[in-house]
Amino acid sequence: MPLDAAAEQDMNSSNGQRARGPFSGVLVIDLTRVLAGPFSTMLMADLGARVIKVEQPGSGDDSRAYGPFKDGKSVYFGFVNRGKESIALDLKNDRDRALFLRMVERADVLVENFRPGTMEKLGLSWEALSKINPRLIYASGSGFGQTGPMSRTPAYDTVVQALSGIMSITGYPDGPPTRVGTSVADLTAGVYLFGGIASALYARETTGRGARVDVAMLDAMLSYLLHGVMEYVAHGRALGRLGNGHPSIAPFDTYQAADELFVICAGGNEVFARLSEAIGRGDLARDERFAHNRNRHENHEALRAELEATLRTKPARHWVEVLTVAGVPCARIQSIPEAVAMPQIAARNMMVESDGMRILGNPIKIGGFDDPATRPAAPALDGNGDAIRAEFGASEERATAAKR
Amino acid sequence: MPLDAAAEQDMNSSNGQRARGPFSGVLVIDLTRVLAGPFSTMLMADLGARVIKVEQPGSGDDSRAYGPFKDGKSVYFGFVNRGKESIALDLKNDRDRALFLRMVERADVLVENFRPGTMEKLGLSWEALSKINPRLIYASGSGFGQTGPMSRTPAYDTVVQALSGIMSITGYPDGPPTRVGTSVADLTAGVYLFGGIASALYARETTGRGARVDVAMLDAMLSYLLHGVMEYVAHGRALGRLGNGHPSIAPFDTYQAADELFVICAGGNEVFARLSEAIGRGDLARDERFAHNRNRHENHEALRAELEATLRTKPARHWVEVLTVAGVPCARIQSIPEAVAMPQIAARNMMVESDGMRILGNPIKIGGFDDPATRPAAPALDGNGDAIRAEFGASEERATAAKR
Repeated sequence: MPLDAAAEQDMNSSNGQRARGPFSGVLVIDLTRVLAGPFSTMLMADLGARVIKVEQPGSGDDSRAYGPFKDGKSVYFGFVNRGKESIALDLKNDRDRALFLRMVERADVLVENFRPGTMEKLGLSWEALSKINPRLIYASGSGFGQTGPMSRTPAYDTVVQALSGIMSITGYPDGPPTRVGTSVADLTAGVYLFGGIASALYARETTGRGARVDVAMLDAMLSYLLHGVMEYVAHGRALGRLGNGHPSIAPFDTYQAADELFVICAGGNEVFARLSEAIGRGDLARDERFAHNRNRHENHEALRAELEATLRTKPARHWVEVLTVAGVPCARIQSIPEAVAMPQIAARNMMVESDGMRILGNPIKIGGFDDPATRPAAPALDGNGDAIRAEFGASEERATAAKR
Repeated sequence: MPLDAAAEQDMNSSNGQRARGPFSGVLVIDLTRVLAGPFSTMLMADLGARVIKVEQPGSGDDSRAYGPFKDGKSVYFGFVNRGKESIALDLKNDRDRALFLRMVERADVLVENFRPGTMEKLGLSWEALSKINPRLIYASGSGFGQTGPMSRTPAYDTVVQALSGIMSITGYPDGPPTRVGTSVADLTAGVYLFGGIASALYARETTGRGARVDVAMLDAMLSYLLHGVMEYVAHGRALGRLGNGHPSIAPFDTYQAADELFVICAGGNEVFARLSEAIGRGDLARDERFAHNRNRHENHEALRAELEATLRTKPARHWVEVLTVAGVPCARIQSIPEAVAMPQIAARNMMVESDGMRILGNPIKIGGFDDPATRPAAPALDGNGDAIRAEFGASEERATAAKR
């Protein structure tokens, strides 16, 4: 390896800093772009895998151009690509393709989220690559999956949210269907894809063979809608929009304080009695209309009026303090900056340092492995290219690289 | 094993029907209740693990009493416990506890979602059980995690949605914060817990040792809010509610047809031109106000007015047909029954048969393993108890069991 490349690797790659995790020693070739795929390989990297991002020369992963930006760099790209390496390869160029195939020979996992059919067109199908490396886990994330009539339909998170039904059940009964305010279809597919890769790696220890993993955003999103599907299976009807309330328990909703809405979850009779006492409304626990959950649920609007007559006199922070002391589950509706500032989030190492900024940490905590408070930066495009070329190049190419 | 027990096992347990999956041969002791934990072990069972649910004698998992019901049985319980076995054990009773500890000796994984501290009080801490079985993966799901100042605070999905910030960014700019219409915090924790278990099982192949897995609903939910955290990190401000729209691209939102709202995602200039032509409004693509994405985004309300003047003349189904032919990503906002009826969902085996009803399938598809269209029923409380007692009982107890 030429000195320059080694120095660059020290600076840019995660090699020196990679966390010791359950996937230490696992090599992941990462062809994914934007969100669902990169999120899955981010989890792999967070848990110790070596992830080499193979990017289009010139522009690389589309999300390198996505805002927000900080110091000229995409914060978006930085969040989901920390701890990965990058090489720019044109998979239609013979020399780059040869290098890529040598990487595949030695890889444990390949992950891609092209539209189904694209890898086949490139001659890089599961069938082709598993011939080169029968131990390869070949994991694909897509909008609708590798099979079925919609397989090749392009998908956006919002399209999948609309089709899955999650928009139809989010929002208020008298209001419009509502998109979940984050890319929940992409991210859920990403976490399932990660789980599928981990499962296939475990299975390989027994079978000795790789496997094809196929996760669809639509399948992933639908799997989250089990309450709605239950309602349909049991009663043949569509679940509607419930606002912030519970379908059968009260009080279990958002309630208006002097300044803002906040959450109270006080379904049982005992906790309802504690709630009533704590806010100085012991009368409510003795009121026949609210004697049992069934009554409270049936008379929820009357109960809301009684509760809010008192709750509207003081701000939400006050009530949350009072109710927490009384052992009544409740919460302010926090903004994201408020959530991030929670001591609990700090204690859980859920905000970590990377490349001079604070980014989200890894939610899978596994004892005995590292969960570092500093994560390696996301790579520059082709930032590890020379080192990777030197490492995986054929012998004459290695010689050429060394002379560069 | 007594004949009765064997017969019962044949009828009630998954032993005869268990899918061949990546976790075939893995024994999971499942102490979880209700949703996040059972969802994680459901994924394990779907992928071939043997999952033995250890339930409180008498009532069992709380969710056995949750609606909806069908033929007197909880559909809720059926959905998330298909393919598991059940034994009722009182962990404070010496005899039951001894049996439980013998199960732990032979288990690969123990999963629990009690409030942190409960397992310790029962004398069943990670430290205690890993002495009995150093290869045990001990996985805990909780509201806030095993560590930190809020560790022992009870959590409900709605509380975690409120604290994490997801409610603050879901809904319309002029409307209230909105709960995601499904238990997204519970379910996300469940999928991460599953991923953590799979990761720890893989690591054990190298280390020879089990590990403690610790997943919190709050960490899990926050990890999904990366766009909001990015905004805060880059600009120091809270992301607000955007309704169904995109922060920087237009048209990329829901639009009003004659009958209902539907989704159009047409950010690029080419796809916007196709959209304009397809709805007979080629003039829009030539309008200076809408010439580039930046203009379209700045003038989104004007663009919406122009688009909806046309879109309101025909129903959403019409426009979705027309736009799909034109290659413009779009979608109706489907109800859950409509989502479930999609041919794509059938092709993906995402609705399967179990116990005489249709339930959700498994979204992790791994080639070479089973993805059966019929899943074993959820167990009756203690439905496999005799067989499990016979299998794991000490020799004199086995003799007693055989004489019963």
